[in-house]
Amino acid sequence: MPVASQGTIKTLIPEELKDINVNIILSNTYHLYLRPGVDVIQKLGGLHRFMAWDGPILTDSGGYQVFSHRDLRRIDEEGVHFRSHLDGSPHFLTPEGVVDIQNALGSDIAMVFDECTPYPCSHVDAQKSMELSMRWARRCRERWRLSDDGSRALFGIVQGSVYPELRRRSVEELLKLDFPGMAIGGLSVGEPRDEMFEVLEATLPLLPSDRPRYLMGVGTPQDLIRAVALGVDMFDCVLPTRNARNGCLFTSQGRILIKNAIYAEDESPPDPECSCGTCRRYSRAYLRHLFLAGEHLSAVLNTQHNVSFYLDMMKKIREFIEFNSYGKWLHLADKALE
Amino acid sequence: MPVASQGTIKTLIPEELKDINVNIILSNTYHLYLRPGVDVIQKLGGLHRFMAWDGPILTDSGGYQVFSHRDLRRIDEEGVHFRSHLDGSPHFLTPEGVVDIQNALGSDIAMVFDECTPYPCSHVDAQKSMELSMRWARRCRERWRLSDDGSRALFGIVQGSVYPELRRRSVEELLKLDFPGMAIGGLSVGEPRDEMFEVLEATLPLLPSDRPRYLMGVGTPQDLIRAVALGVDMFDCVLPTRNARNGCLFTSQGRILIKNAIYAEDESPPDPECSCGTCRRYSRAYLRHLFLAGEHLSAVLNTQHNVSFYLDMMKKIREFIEFNSYGKWLHLADKALE
Repeated sequence: MPVASQGTIKTLIPEELKDINVNIILSNTYHLYLRPGVDVIQKLGGLHRFMAWDGPILTDSGGYQVFSHRDLRRIDEEGVHFRSHLDGSPHFLTPEGVVDIQNALGSDIAMVFDECTPYPCSHVDAQKSMELSMRWARRCRERWRLSDDGSRALFGIVQGSVYPELRRRSVEELLKLDFPGMAIGGLSVGEPRDEMFEVLEATLPLLPSDRPRYLMGVGTPQDLIRAVALGVDMFDCVLPTRNARNGCLFTSQGRILIKNAIYAEDESPPDPECSCGTCRRYSRAYLRHLFLAGEHLSAVLNTQHNVSFYLDMMKKIREFIEFNSYGKWLHLADKALE
Repeated sequence: MPVASQGTIKTLIPEELKDINVNIILSNTYHLYLRPGVDVIQKLGGLHRFMAWDGPILTDSGGYQVFSHRDLRRIDEEGVHFRSHLDGSPHFLTPEGVVDIQNALGSDIAMVFDECTPYPCSHVDAQKSMELSMRWARRCRERWRLSDDGSRALFGIVQGSVYPELRRRSVEELLKLDFPGMAIGGLSVGEPRDEMFEVLEATLPLLPSDRPRYLMGVGTPQDLIRAVALGVDMFDCVLPTRNARNGCLFTSQGRILIKNAIYAEDESPPDPECSCGTCRRYSRAYLRHLFLAGEHLSAVLNTQHNVSFYLDMMKKIREFIEFNSYGKWLHLADKALE
């Protein structure tokens, strides 16, 4: 899922998203709650209509953003008191409130309100945090039942930092609540890559294989490939869009920094194996020129390519899985992309 | 003509330009000459291929930009010595050189190299400047003949500041050179609007009515309407694109500043009479949100609308002329748009 933090995949219109086979996007409850405000979006017919996107939308619960502004928030059993990073105004979010907000936005997949445990975190703190998140998950589930008509979904989120035993207990708690999909949260928050994969290896086998398993906030192409091999079905990440704006393009030959002088007269497309609009029409030399000239179109074309690259990769992965040759490809891909 | 200073209509891809009926664009010789450089563009197959635009391109001669950096240049009979505003590097442009550059870019309509007389300017200085521009126009014409195959055009540029008699002499000189189109330069450089129209009224009747008359660097919707009434056929202006990025939208009810609080929950499109992609899909509330959130898509959608507004207006003007009711519409439009 490409990320539309503020109700837009930065630079791209919905038609362009469909052209590059985007099927579902992620939007951020926290950002939309603060600006333009949930009332505004509800009055205007919900998030789909507001941003003119008629495909599925997954909204995060805002937990990650609230907890990443550490000096602006205070947590208690009931919920989180925090100050807006935009204007310092005070706010209070509860698990029930976050479900209501996602309902008002019209999310197709909503997420429970959780505390995203920071890294590093002691076992004691990680346990306390995970247990709070599990009590909140239960409250979210209860609130969700009130309006649930079966057309939309609420996912649970596994926490427990880097401690396999806490992760296991978190999964057990969530399984009691019978969520239609399960996310793994609290990873990709600063821990070493190997540690992230150890946690994944320990956690994924515990999750029901007949329901989507979603790894939040991950990652590089290599991370995605490895995580799929372990059983992950869904991802979201700002990497393709953010890197695009910084002039970093993902290609089948690895990343390229488009500002580099070697591309000054390079008439080849960003990625010869890609068939996105950018690669069909433009040379590396033109993209370099746009980037160095500070042109808006630089971000537009780079984003189109990077998102397309990610989705093509996921499509290929699905095909490899279907033909039972994923393990072989994983080996090749890891070598090519490092 | 929307303006693609650096080889891109800021924010829009060529497909989007075609969607909103852009038939011809203007690009800036000065900007492209300095970055990425004419050699690069030539090696990559010319400007059309470089920017993936297969419609006509008019390039200005760079005169306006060279002369607007007053402390960076020195003029003599041969040409202009100037320093790059990007890196201070020294350059020398001659009328012949500027024709060669536009040939290398592959311009469909090239412009002669002229001195854009500043405002205010004494009669003595304006005369000297205009006479230099006319000698340069002759040199450009001579150079052009060497490669002219009739498939492209070189336009002359009338100078003479605000002095009708100098403008008349400038036209007489240019007529001797038999240009296939004539531009009026040195206006919209700071003079009062009434003074600009006085010069136009005095100059336009002197220009051949069977060849395009092009008013450079103008202007607001009202300016365009009045200037067409006086006989102008072509315009270029950064106003629709620049204002778009600043959140100023042109509409059939006048300009609106999209950041204003009155649009916070306004579900109507930017302009109810417009059928561009932005107006078909988005509310003022969404555009306001994008602008306040500093989102890239704000510039994309606003530019799409503003350029579309200008081109729709020109299309209507052409229809009114065809049905002989332009004078009546001029009166109505001037009232509505002020």
